[in-house]
Amino acid sequence: MVEKLKRLAVLGSTGSIGRQTLDVIRAFPDRFRIVGLAAGKNLYLLVEQVEEFRPRFVSYVKTEKRKTGCELIPLEDMASHPDIDMVVIATAGTAGLGATLAAAKAGKAIALANKESLVAAGEIITNIVKKSGARIIPVDSEHSAIFQCLKGEKQQPRRIILTASGGPFRSFTGKQMENITVDQALAHPSWKMGKKVTIDSATLMNKGLEVIEARWLFNMPIDNITVLIHPQSIVHSMVEFADGSVKAQLSRPDMRLPIQYALTYPDRLENNTLPNIDWSNFRDLTFEPPDTERFPCLALGIAAGEKGGTAPAALCGADEVAVELFLAGRIVFTDIPRLIAGAMERHVNIAHPTIDEIMDAERRAREEVLETAGVKVK
Amino acid sequence: MVEKLKRLAVLGSTGSIGRQTLDVIRAFPDRFRIVGLAAGKNLYLLVEQVEEFRPRFVSYVKTEKRKTGCELIPLEDMASHPDIDMVVIATAGTAGLGATLAAAKAGKAIALANKESLVAAGEIITNIVKKSGARIIPVDSEHSAIFQCLKGEKQQPRRIILTASGGPFRSFTGKQMENITVDQALAHPSWKMGKKVTIDSATLMNKGLEVIEARWLFNMPIDNITVLIHPQSIVHSMVEFADGSVKAQLSRPDMRLPIQYALTYPDRLENNTLPNIDWSNFRDLTFEPPDTERFPCLALGIAAGEKGGTAPAALCGADEVAVELFLAGRIVFTDIPRLIAGAMERHVNIAHPTIDEIMDAERRAREEVLETAGVKVK
Repeated sequence: MVEKLKRLAVLGSTGSIGRQTLDVIRAFPDRFRIVGLAAGKNLYLLVEQVEEFRPRFVSYVKTEKRKTGCELIPLEDMASHPDIDMVVIATAGTAGLGATLAAAKAGKAIALANKESLVAAGEIITNIVKKSGARIIPVDSEHSAIFQCLKGEKQQPRRIILTASGGPFRSFTGKQMENITVDQALAHPSWKMGKKVTIDSATLMNKGLEVIEARWLFNMPIDNITVLIHPQSIVHSMVEFADGSVKAQLSRPDMRLPIQYALTYPDRLENNTLPNIDWSNFRDLTFEPPDTERFPCLALGIAAGEKGGTAPAALCGADEVAVELFLAGRIVFTDIPRLIAGAMERHVNIAHPTIDEIMDAERRAREEVLETAGVKVK
Repeated sequence: MVEKLKRLAVLGSTGSIGRQTLDVIRAFPDRFRIVGLAAGKNLYLLVEQVEEFRPRFVSYVKTEKRKTGCELIPLEDMASHPDIDMVVIATAGTAGLGATLAAAKAGKAIALANKESLVAAGEIITNIVKKSGARIIPVDSEHSAIFQCLKGEKQQPRRIILTASGGPFRSFTGKQMENITVDQALAHPSWKMGKKVTIDSATLMNKGLEVIEARWLFNMPIDNITVLIHPQSIVHSMVEFADGSVKAQLSRPDMRLPIQYALTYPDRLENNTLPNIDWSNFRDLTFEPPDTERFPCLALGIAAGEKGGTAPAALCGADEVAVELFLAGRIVFTDIPRLIAGAMERHVNIAHPTIDEIMDAERRAREEVLETAGVKVK
């Protein structure tokens, strides 16, 4: 059987998810063709990728004139181009929002690794997708797990159980958390990820954002989403159905698996470069409820999700800046939730906002955090 | 929406699975109608059930003339009657084989709780089902779990992971196992089941039979079926796919859930009488490889499955008699595998057997066990 080549645009190709996406694509040269590559920072790696994959389109944040042999086009044009079947959105932070909107309007298949766009503008994106016929396939391991568990099920599930590794400070006391270094926070016990997501995993803000993401992806009330700490990162999430039956998706923690699933969906392809569970050494899976006292970012995330409107966008903005300040050594680890909480307290919520209102809420929250931290706003 | 009433025959209605099937049916009076009831031993309960459900047909092993207001018909006629949509086969042991064959030939939807029929005659039943368009929906919790995990998946999975509670003697030493009493063996730590299945669970023969059942239900080579001990009986089984992703089905151990799933498939219905997992108290799930030295019945089961032909039928016959002798206090617990192993050693295998050859192999194995145990054959 001759499979039709799937034509891909990979947005954020030089980041952690982008590079792993290209790894998967390398394993299936007969199934995928890279038509577009886009990156924001790492021009050196982007040029290498362009030489290897020879895409037709390239997008780079700092538009430079270089001989690439490709057409330089804006991110949004690439995400909506008729010669692209699937857009992989692996850009970090709220920078992915414009491209996600463009791909959604153009009715594309979207492999979505950027959680901030759905968190900040879930209602708008969901409405566009309904009209355009676009299809969002989640790349986050948790949402991929839920998506896999829902496959073939007709009825709306009753509950989603999002698992969380708990990060490197799961067993830290409140006292210990005051002295966390950047290196400690970047040393995630089970996942290899980009810096922003790794810090978000250490504060559990990542799980708060994922609760909001799940709310939109699966049309599930926040109250029906349960977070469980599962340090082994083997069970990636679970779904409870109307009859009380629960399905879980398991694998060794490797982002290439949910990436591949999004690319090959609804098929599953053998890939020898992916790790398998060793059943002869399969032992204990442990679970515990999260501690929102030591990890207030999780509660902040859930509260913003319940509030809706512009609150999740403000949360994203405040969190992005707080994480940047922590990585730059300007604030301590426990300042992250403190600064975000302050920005959220001062946030004036707008229900059913426009994209401009969302962007504005995000920008204001960024500024609030910078000001409170005593950093001069540029 | 008006749902069409599903017309059911429940074979083995007075046994453990049969009674739980009627429990589920009581919860959905608008979806199911009992058209036939059949039982083998408990006439008193059968009469009660007839009075409650007013079926058109009744089948009872010892044909007695009683005023039931129902037509008394043979089991096979009930299983294949045109006015029946789904046949629930919950008879114990090899007695279910004739009815399973009749229902399969008649192209029925079969909710199969009787594992011995597929174990003994899996090849024949599978071939009949392919031709007749019958559909077997497993009721065993493990096979229901696998069936649920496969829902919506197009590709043949790579591996099946059958979980086993390990029974009440999981941590017993070889020495301790010599002194097991009948009461100890009947006290299963997590499941409420009939006596035969409970003893089979204590010896792990049950898991051996389930490996063979899974082989036929899911067209899976025995080598690709892994057994894992999981004492909490929450994960009912797992399926590994080509990409290394694994799905698991979980629930509290209650047979009414897989029974209901078989009855309502492909739908899932809310049923407040079924237990739910309490996520606020969801803790550790433990797994370990089975010990076939202390539990030789598991190895005997897998070996018979690998051999194929009449070997699984002989295994069923030998096991049924050995369990009966143990329950009657005629042999000790460790005699069960010893007697079965003896019968299997003397068994002369026939590849691709007829039903008569299967029945003959089973009968001979029964006689072998009785003779070795020094019990006079009637």
